[in-house]
Amino acid sequence: AAAAPAKLGMCVSCHGTEGISSLPAHPHLAGQNREYLISAMQQYQRGERQHAAMQAMMGPLSEQDIKQLADYYGRLPRTPGDTQAP
Amino acid sequence: AAAAPAKLGMCVSCHGTEGISSLPAHPHLAGQNREYLISAMQQYQRGERQHAAMQAMMGPLSEQDIKQLADYYGRLPRTPGDTQAP
Repeated sequence: AAAAPAKLGMCVSCHGTEGISSLPAHPHLAGQNREYLISAMQQYQRGERQHAAMQAMMGPLSEQDIKQLADYYGRLPRTPGDTQAP
Repeated sequence: AAAAPAKLGMCVSCHGTEGISSLPAHPHLAGQNREYLISAMQQYQRGERQHAAMQAMMGPLSEQDIKQLADYYGRLPRTPGDTQAP
């Protein structure tokens, strides 16, 4: 599989390695639309979405980091273990 | 099944009746965490998330509308057709 994104470590504590969130307050990201994920991360970067932790983490991310993370989570099956692509 | 939420009609054009979005810019909501969905809708209501269409639609919703919509989408299987609950 493609290499894991450089900044993935920041995300997995809340969103999980398989994109299934550990706490009900956090969204599942598995199989989410890539374009939506990119725009959500950009909105945190621009302060158009207010969330202390997310804004802090998104701050230093490059355009490429964001695309890699969106690709990673977007490609995961919405239900872990499902083999067909979302 | 539980009655569809009163305000569901507003949501389905972008998020689908099964919570799978019609356009890549919109998030899938099927099987999403109920608590997260409630907080996201509340953030649109309070302007903590900026999105013209969503803010306009969330404006008139009651607390109960929001809970019903979060329950509806949160209960849907993440992959349509899957019988086990998310």
